[in-house]
Amino acid sequence: MTYCVGVLVDAGLVLLSDTRTNAGLDNISTYRKLFIFEEPGDRVICLQTAGSLSVTQTVLARINEAIKAEDGRPSLMTCETMLEVAEMVGGMLREVSTDIQSRLGQKGGGSASILLSGQLKGGQMRLFLLYDAGNFIEATDDTPFLQIGEHKYGKPILDRVIDRSVSLAEARKAALLSMDSTIRSNLSVGMPLDLVTIPRDEWRVESRERFEAGDEKIAGMSEAWSRALRDAYTQIEI
Amino acid sequence: MTYCVGVLVDAGLVLLSDTRTNAGLDNISTYRKLFIFEEPGDRVICLQTAGSLSVTQTVLARINEAIKAEDGRPSLMTCETMLEVAEMVGGMLREVSTDIQSRLGQKGGGSASILLSGQLKGGQMRLFLLYDAGNFIEATDDTPFLQIGEHKYGKPILDRVIDRSVSLAEARKAALLSMDSTIRSNLSVGMPLDLVTIPRDEWRVESRERFEAGDEKIAGMSEAWSRALRDAYTQIEI
Repeated sequence: MTYCVGVLVDAGLVLLSDTRTNAGLDNISTYRKLFIFEEPGDRVICLQTAGSLSVTQTVLARINEAIKAEDGRPSLMTCETMLEVAEMVGGMLREVSTDIQSRLGQKGGGSASILLSGQLKGGQMRLFLLYDAGNFIEATDDTPFLQIGEHKYGKPILDRVIDRSVSLAEARKAALLSMDSTIRSNLSVGMPLDLVTIPRDEWRVESRERFEAGDEKIAGMSEAWSRALRDAYTQIEI
Repeated sequence: MTYCVGVLVDAGLVLLSDTRTNAGLDNISTYRKLFIFEEPGDRVICLQTAGSLSVTQTVLARINEAIKAEDGRPSLMTCETMLEVAEMVGGMLREVSTDIQSRLGQKGGGSASILLSGQLKGGQMRLFLLYDAGNFIEATDDTPFLQIGEHKYGKPILDRVIDRSVSLAEARKAALLSMDSTIRSNLSVGMPLDLVTIPRDEWRVESRERFEAGDEKIAGMSEAWSRALRDAYTQIEI
């Protein structure tokens, strides 16, 4: 399983992904699920991936191949709008997952989804959720965050504290608390975590952090949050 | 969908169920999902149901028929242990769901699950989760609550505050907060709510409450909890 969340507020983007991948409970690995394509001052594009690793790795490989190719084919680094990027990556995702699903046949599997976000110079900052049919939805003022993978445990806190006006620091904290609830409840979501913040209209990553297993800041936050929740709980009357 | 939770602590049982039933999003009804069979001082047995309404209503009808029959057949009111009750209800659930599933064939559906709880004089208080194959699991010291239906949104708060030593009032509050998170996030779980508390070794229901849509106590709790969560959230540093 996986948990990735993207938050798009007025101040910019916060992206958080876990790194646990499993094929059954007895085969657990660590794979990065957050990828950055950046040309500071011109464009920053991020992908967060969930689902079949064979699908998402192949999509990433094709994206990188297109960037390196010198045959003039379009790539993430030449697209002129985020919509064009979403259509390109959606098309790749559809192609790869259709191919792999047809090979797997009745065995099932081969499904994946991608959070695609970023901003190109001259355009709006955007956050999309791409499905494996290549179609996509987009974060809006009313729904400023999108999630893929194990999304349920971590949604209540986001519903309660995220709106478009919160700062990047606040959005970062909410994303981490949302991840904390998910990790506590679903063994197949786990550390290390990758976190990125991108201010609006700066076309660059402001901070990229990796929190390793046992990270003291995360453990401290988790404990403080548990304590705060229990305190809040004792004060409620019904 | 449905959300039912049963909490078994040293002090006794707290049971909470929503009442929303839907066949598609455009066909929503209210059906009680919490049922009590009681002979005060001798036995109290409760059922909470999730899944196919045609299955759970038929199981309930058979349970009631057996109780009314005067032909000496065993019933919930004559069983001598909670294990016997679990086996009887599990058997009925298996029989009914197998029958309905075979009629539905490839259309799918006909699955259901039941939380069964209570205490008979001379026996322990117990809480079971019955699957539609008739098999079941039981709440233990380590896992003092069981959920059926839409269980994910409401689990984090229970994980954090419930252990065997909490009072019935605390368990009741935690169950209501767990329901509140679920209702906020899943439209197919909704008011009214049915809530029951059963003290250990008293073989009777202590309180039964129904909270109607718009109930002021529930609305007040929900608002206070949102406020407390946001306050707690502002105090967290990371």
